[in-house]
Amino acid sequence: MTLPLALSIGDPAGVGPELACAAWALSGTAGLPPFFVVGSARVIEDAGYARGLHVRVAAISSPAEAAAIFPTALPVLEVGDIDYTPGQPTDEGASLALRALETATALVLAGEASALVTGPIAKSRLARIGFTQPGQTEFVADACAIAHADAVMMLAGPNLRVVPITVHVPISAVPGLLTADLIRSRAIIAAAALQRDFSIAAPRLAIAGLNPHAGEDGRMGREEIEVIAPAVAALRTAGIDARGPLPADTMFHAAARETYDAAICMYHDQALIPIKVLDFDEGVNVTLGLPIVRTSPDHGTAFGIAGTGEARPGATLAALRMAGECAARRMSLLRPG
Amino acid sequence: MTLPLALSIGDPAGVGPELACAAWALSGTAGLPPFFVVGSARVIEDAGYARGLHVRVAAISSPAEAAAIFPTALPVLEVGDIDYTPGQPTDEGASLALRALETATALVLAGEASALVTGPIAKSRLARIGFTQPGQTEFVADACAIAHADAVMMLAGPNLRVVPITVHVPISAVPGLLTADLIRSRAIIAAAALQRDFSIAAPRLAIAGLNPHAGEDGRMGREEIEVIAPAVAALRTAGIDARGPLPADTMFHAAARETYDAAICMYHDQALIPIKVLDFDEGVNVTLGLPIVRTSPDHGTAFGIAGTGEARPGATLAALRMAGECAARRMSLLRPG
Repeated sequence: MTLPLALSIGDPAGVGPELACAAWALSGTAGLPPFFVVGSARVIEDAGYARGLHVRVAAISSPAEAAAIFPTALPVLEVGDIDYTPGQPTDEGASLALRALETATALVLAGEASALVTGPIAKSRLARIGFTQPGQTEFVADACAIAHADAVMMLAGPNLRVVPITVHVPISAVPGLLTADLIRSRAIIAAAALQRDFSIAAPRLAIAGLNPHAGEDGRMGREEIEVIAPAVAALRTAGIDARGPLPADTMFHAAARETYDAAICMYHDQALIPIKVLDFDEGVNVTLGLPIVRTSPDHGTAFGIAGTGEARPGATLAALRMAGECAARRMSLLRPG
Repeated sequence: MTLPLALSIGDPAGVGPELACAAWALSGTAGLPPFFVVGSARVIEDAGYARGLHVRVAAISSPAEAAAIFPTALPVLEVGDIDYTPGQPTDEGASLALRALETATALVLAGEASALVTGPIAKSRLARIGFTQPGQTEFVADACAIAHADAVMMLAGPNLRVVPITVHVPISAVPGLLTADLIRSRAIIAAAALQRDFSIAAPRLAIAGLNPHAGEDGRMGREEIEVIAPAVAALRTAGIDARGPLPADTMFHAAARETYDAAICMYHDQALIPIKVLDFDEGVNVTLGLPIVRTSPDHGTAFGIAGTGEARPGATLAALRMAGECAARRMSLLRPG
């Protein structure tokens, strides 16, 4: 039996519901594996209608029903029933989004779904209803009993994969947060995941410098010498094909990208600027280092355009496809030769 | 009479000489205006030969001879005669590079050449022979009696123009160097140059934030609130179409780029990562705010590949073309109606 992917609806007032519909409508041409939505059938139905899609919605009571239904209807596992109010987030909606995330995660952990794909939520609104984690990644890490520091964010698109070592912190805090140990441990998690989930036998990591021209031998900052170079040396000692610290500005053009499988970046925008230039509509956020496969489209709730039909489904399609591929690779590792 | 462009040779052991030859060889198809090299005829001749180009070199004694000669030979105004030693920089070569820069700048200031295009130099080697400025931009600013702070670097390619507010400083120093006044004054110089030299009547400036998500209302850094937003407000008060602070990661994809004429960036890599992703082989460094037009190809001496024929001429072609266009626009502003 084919295990389906579990897609949490995200904030029902955001673009998550309509993109779930669009992904189902495009699943044949996009070559997606079967998936089901964890959320509200009414919201999904209304969101599809608002987008001008004729999406048949089928409520299911167990993921086991999803694969057989998927070719003719979009399976929805209900965790609530609320009105569809695109662009107008409510606490009720946030509450639904949280239940969907909890349920979808639990089903994947229980082996009833092959991988977790999370729709976009509004963190500030979730915080108001008692969500204590900074984001979905940390929620999933907790559910998997993995330390937040060991759940590593990778953004992946058709042209580039990037792993930011620091993420949602001010630029002024970045130099103080970088340690050789942090860089080393996250890069090791990234390398292991590229092997296991992306079938890259000997992953090549390009480690970015922090400063302009990677510090130019200490003339423009010493973090490369004191922190990043020792991390690269430790990675090489650990048998990982790591290079760096490299000047960040010359790491991301086409010829440079051919020399590595993932770029390890020191801060948020160093990673996100190049991938959003290259893969704006197809960026997938993958959480590495978890016992389950988890991806999400690399965009937010986009309340401003929810329900208008403007939201592009590329990232959702890519997140579903990548989740399916990673899950299949993990399964194949479990099968005898 | 057509005034020619003055191209300084750069370090004679770098890729400057061969790219001057390649640019001349491609000048017809690339639609370049006439230019002459300030340097050494022997170096140019040997560099062309090493690259497999049949470049006729004609020594000239005055820029006034250049335009007539240009269709049949590459005019060279000699400031020295040394051996061509690609990949092996010498103090003698650095000295030639400096004389070439001095002479080319003086000829443009004297109105004998229409614009200055500078070949790549090795700063550390120039410093050894008594060059006191940090780079060519500051040298040219001094020659023009313009304060270094008022000579503003813009990098321009077919897809993007960026102005970094801070440049060759460590990331840890960036937050302390940013002031509303610095951002405002550089953006005003940029806007004026876009009008005068790029014929953009009402330049639209996109001002980047410093922190992830432009600080997200102060949750990830306060520079946006305390420094950048006031600078944007001051620019708007001054009648400039400025927007921001904007999240840097979503500023550079194709649809976003259509909404502005130049991005004002807070630090080196925020500006250089996107332009090198988009326009790696065609990036031009333009100095704004000078009484003369000055451009240069956005790459270094590349000693490692000098003489091998690997260096691509795209940026040199683009620097020459842009210099010619900017100079022509300034001239047209001087002509009556």
